[in-house]
Amino acid sequence: MEVPPPLVLKRPLYVPSKTLMGPGPSNCSHRVLEAMSNPVLGHMHPECLQIMDEVKEGIKYIFQTLNDATMCISGAGHAGMEASLCNLIEDGDVVLLGITGVWGHRAADMARRYGADVRLVEASFGRALSHEEIKFAFETHRPRIFFVAQGDSSTGIIQQNIREIGELCRQFDCFLVVDTVASLGGTEFLMDEWKVDVVYTGSQKSLGGPAGLTPISFSKRALTHIKQRKTKPKVYYFDILLIGQYWGCYGTPRIYHHTISTTLLYGLREALAHFCAVGLKSVVRRHQECSRRLQLGIEELGLEMFVQREDERLPTVNTIKVPFGVDWKKVAEYAMRKYSVEISGGLGPTVEHVFRIGLMGENATVERVDMVLSILHEAIQSIKLRAVKTERSKI
Amino acid sequence: MEVPPPLVLKRPLYVPSKTLMGPGPSNCSHRVLEAMSNPVLGHMHPECLQIMDEVKEGIKYIFQTLNDATMCISGAGHAGMEASLCNLIEDGDVVLLGITGVWGHRAADMARRYGADVRLVEASFGRALSHEEIKFAFETHRPRIFFVAQGDSSTGIIQQNIREIGELCRQFDCFLVVDTVASLGGTEFLMDEWKVDVVYTGSQKSLGGPAGLTPISFSKRALTHIKQRKTKPKVYYFDILLIGQYWGCYGTPRIYHHTISTTLLYGLREALAHFCAVGLKSVVRRHQECSRRLQLGIEELGLEMFVQREDERLPTVNTIKVPFGVDWKKVAEYAMRKYSVEISGGLGPTVEHVFRIGLMGENATVERVDMVLSILHEAIQSIKLRAVKTERSKI
Repeated sequence: MEVPPPLVLKRPLYVPSKTLMGPGPSNCSHRVLEAMSNPVLGHMHPECLQIMDEVKEGIKYIFQTLNDATMCISGAGHAGMEASLCNLIEDGDVVLLGITGVWGHRAADMARRYGADVRLVEASFGRALSHEEIKFAFETHRPRIFFVAQGDSSTGIIQQNIREIGELCRQFDCFLVVDTVASLGGTEFLMDEWKVDVVYTGSQKSLGGPAGLTPISFSKRALTHIKQRKTKPKVYYFDILLIGQYWGCYGTPRIYHHTISTTLLYGLREALAHFCAVGLKSVVRRHQECSRRLQLGIEELGLEMFVQREDERLPTVNTIKVPFGVDWKKVAEYAMRKYSVEISGGLGPTVEHVFRIGLMGENATVERVDMVLSILHEAIQSIKLRAVKTERSKI
Repeated sequence: MEVPPPLVLKRPLYVPSKTLMGPGPSNCSHRVLEAMSNPVLGHMHPECLQIMDEVKEGIKYIFQTLNDATMCISGAGHAGMEASLCNLIEDGDVVLLGITGVWGHRAADMARRYGADVRLVEASFGRALSHEEIKFAFETHRPRIFFVAQGDSSTGIIQQNIREIGELCRQFDCFLVVDTVASLGGTEFLMDEWKVDVVYTGSQKSLGGPAGLTPISFSKRALTHIKQRKTKPKVYYFDILLIGQYWGCYGTPRIYHHTISTTLLYGLREALAHFCAVGLKSVVRRHQECSRRLQLGIEELGLEMFVQREDERLPTVNTIKVPFGVDWKKVAEYAMRKYSVEISGGLGPTVEHVFRIGLMGENATVERVDMVLSILHEAIQSIKLRAVKTERSKI
């Protein structure tokens, strides 16, 4: 029996233009989009390797690190999480995960599959983890690896004390893995100074690159440990010693590991180039100013932020309590239908409870903040009105 | 200490135009390249899910399957290999790998890391595996999983007896994994009819899509087995039950698993649409005709194919013996420098021994065949002449 060619593929490709103000991806600039229509290159061609070198330098800058083992994983942000854990974990290692939303649980799922002895330290609902909570967990569990998200996009919580956690990890001879997928560009991050052992971030958030390539960096200390593993990392595709060889990280000849997407490399390269040209401090300042403006606007609308403490609010993904009696889904649908603007609902512990408004990259501007505030207001009013009408019609 | 922004990123992006006639990637059409400069979409937006559905239908067609569990892995072809093995293997499973070049060894490396009991069955140098060799290995090892590449791009060998292997696997209650990264589009492949349990292919070869998304399909039989695993697959990122849920394969609500690259989806969708419009049989016929023309030309140039038996030659990646006394690298460099045409050297067992000429997708045309033949001839002559001159100058 023959499978016929599908009719749906006879229709032209349809891609609408939207303003992506959810938790990511954010919009790519024209520069980034145009770069991605360049012809593809071979994965070992010198011009491709040159672009990889440029991307590598850009990543060192955004992470503020001099680590040799700085590269990209060819996969989504989740693949960065996998690679971090996969390279560090050996069977039975105690891995402690800091939980401020869904991402710690996600990392726990991965770590368990890799054979780790998984322990959790959970923050109070809507709060970041305090130094005391973390220290107590360290004393209890004596972890070999500690994972924490600097920004948890499901709750909009920022973990401000990474520097102190870095110190603690050295005291306890523990490796520190930090997820900066949602936070990078929205807040300070100093890999070397804070003694972070592994960090990865999302290309499609504040960087404004395409999804699919995940910047990652390993400290010398982590690398030495990985070289001394008793067993190989469980996944060839995530083996940082091999990937780093392909990325030319170790001063050894570059050896083919997998076929990298040059299309995504072009996009990420241009996103990094823009980011570097503007400068890290300026990017962070802009994201923070936009978030503050949004928070003020939210207050003025009589709405409330989900994260109570101002200093624990992630500037890039802002969580706003859904007002009583309002269906968040209808609000999001209204914004999308009428303005092609994405306002997102919650995820994991915040499902149904919050709106998530992303202010990242191209969308972290005063104009977009004011626009999204006005749309949110209009959408909520409209949904409330509709609800009243429906109620009345029942009488 | 502050890490300054890198100077290299102040230069504009440089991407030369090349004719990619190595083992892949092949050139993308303008249609595919242009599609990739479309604005990005959210990974759960209905328009994105619609494109995923269209891609899924296209993949079913190219594999000739009705399998529900048909989707893409967000990663290179290697990630497809990982996902195949990761979902099937449980600790201690006997995995038998058919070796006709490097890819069987690569799969063996992955399988070992997943805790498999790995056995190999190796073909004679430059030959495909015979049914007898495979059957003998089955009787000896009683494998739970058998892996074979339909086309091995390192040697240019095609494994023609997949249908018979499919029968054998059922007799031995074994799962059949077939790598069609290099072969699909260049030869017949009938997943359902041949009783293949898992297949994946490369997007950047005969399909002419971008690298970075890997089409994959699991049979009902494989899926049932995976659902009954005693332990979870070792890698969350490759867990086909979760990825398939995101791809809407199982009739259950679509749940976020990772952020897919919409950019790559656009490109792959357009590549599949073109492939489907032309039709599988016609695509295969064109690839085979081009390869035959190349082989004739090679003979006329007094050169020799690496694979002795005509019916064991892969039409998509053609391996040609490097003539005695000629440095393959200089030939490749000549073709690239003068014509921006990629002719590749060997890989693994064929390093230094062969040229590899890819005739895939956009590059599988009579014109390109004639062009690459004339360039190869000119390059070899020029390198020989240079060698003679160098010898003389020594006298």
